[in-house]
Amino acid sequence: MSAPVVVKVGGSDGIDLDAVCDDLARMWREGRRVVLVHGGSAETNRVSAQLGVPPRFVTSPGGHQSRFTDRATLEVFEMVYCGKVNKGIVERLQACGVNAVGVSGLDGRLLEGRLKSTVRSVENGRVLVLHGDHTGTVEKVNVALLELLLGNGYLPVLTPPAVSYEGVAMNVDGDRAAAAVAVALGAEALVLLSNVPGLLSAFPDEATLVPRVDAAAPEAAMELAQGRMKKKVMGAVAAVTGGVGRVVLGDARVAEPVSRALRGYGTVVA
Amino acid sequence: MSAPVVVKVGGSDGIDLDAVCDDLARMWREGRRVVLVHGGSAETNRVSAQLGVPPRFVTSPGGHQSRFTDRATLEVFEMVYCGKVNKGIVERLQACGVNAVGVSGLDGRLLEGRLKSTVRSVENGRVLVLHGDHTGTVEKVNVALLELLLGNGYLPVLTPPAVSYEGVAMNVDGDRAAAAVAVALGAEALVLLSNVPGLLSAFPDEATLVPRVDAAAPEAAMELAQGRMKKKVMGAVAAVTGGVGRVVLGDARVAEPVSRALRGYGTVVA
Repeated sequence: MSAPVVVKVGGSDGIDLDAVCDDLARMWREGRRVVLVHGGSAETNRVSAQLGVPPRFVTSPGGHQSRFTDRATLEVFEMVYCGKVNKGIVERLQACGVNAVGVSGLDGRLLEGRLKSTVRSVENGRVLVLHGDHTGTVEKVNVALLELLLGNGYLPVLTPPAVSYEGVAMNVDGDRAAAAVAVALGAEALVLLSNVPGLLSAFPDEATLVPRVDAAAPEAAMELAQGRMKKKVMGAVAAVTGGVGRVVLGDARVAEPVSRALRGYGTVVA
Repeated sequence: MSAPVVVKVGGSDGIDLDAVCDDLARMWREGRRVVLVHGGSAETNRVSAQLGVPPRFVTSPGGHQSRFTDRATLEVFEMVYCGKVNKGIVERLQACGVNAVGVSGLDGRLLEGRLKSTVRSVENGRVLVLHGDHTGTVEKVNVALLELLLGNGYLPVLTPPAVSYEGVAMNVDGDRAAAAVAVALGAEALVLLSNVPGLLSAFPDEATLVPRVDAAAPEAAMELAQGRMKKKVMGAVAAVTGGVGRVVLGDARVAEPVSRALRGYGTVVA
């Protein structure tokens, strides 16, 4: 069987999930094997606020911003990512005739790694140490379970959280997780879709799209990348380094977003 | 391989999910194959209220009470059942060393059936016809996917919603779904756990436990059953009729609730 394509679609506003699912269904009917990884950050922020569990973001001493995930936040995160968004995507794919199976990184220990329960946060110029964070890094992918599903005609729809070696749920970066999945599966391609056309040299001016990033020298691209785009560039570089043949940062607001990215529209990392 | 045991645990307050998971982990280590089906009704009512989507219950002209599930309610339902509750159970089982995989009836079309989008509701003595209900009945179970998971060492943790033949998500009764799974799998036993000791002849007096129900003549038991217990008795009878060897309505508020029910504590339906 051909090597699969791993597609990550973010959870930001403006993303056209119907277009992503239509495109994946077309590819699936043509015999392409696909694993879809998704996020759900914007919806999580909305539901968190409604439930009185407002999101808390921390800035590390190195300048990286991330979500602080205590147990209450983790439960909201699971409701949105594993419930509303994951099952919404599975339902869309089922309606397109694709037999999708939605799972999280907890299920079958699909995404396993190290829990970092303590995090340093810069607040008002001081460095605080926060405990009880459910955040970690994916170090192992259960390839056997993904192959089992793919080999039996199921399209896996995969979402954080992951699971720690101790069996605790942990939030992980979706782009880095998708890259780990692509490397572990020996994927033919990794497409990271978001609500911008790719890496922009002058964010948010979409006319400043960077068409190509050299994975062997990503420093300039990392300088340009703003906010969450940093994780996407890091994931893309990790995937190229890990042997994934084609890695593209593409736009999820257009028709046929996956096919378009695979044709090279967006930022190609090679 | 031995025939599996199907366990359904409800979503009412008072249920000890830790005890259920500990017990299942012990059985799993002893080589029993298990499929767990769960609910989440009490938590769904709480989250619905917090999100400003209060639950709406309808009473059919026949006197059955059920949840009216419009699209907004379905999304809350998915958040709680597929997100918070399902992943909470999977995490508990992972922490006990059981490689659980949580899926809904949408995933892999595990629970498939007929959508009944129109429902009749008796309100103030008048019969109203309500449209847009996402409720249905399970008619097909994807046994191949459950066997695939069980055969590869994964404990399936299954939750509504199910999927209609058209690919639309629909709420289904969890007890009836568990019975359908048990029959389709040729299960050795079906255990339906809730926050009472079994069928009570004078609800809520727990001293009035009915120890045995004759599946060939369930009319008297159906008369005694109050509210949701009616669906449990119907599910139990359907399972016995469908060839499941041992069917017990048991108590989920005690230690070793599954083993205890399998030893005959509760209401045995035969």
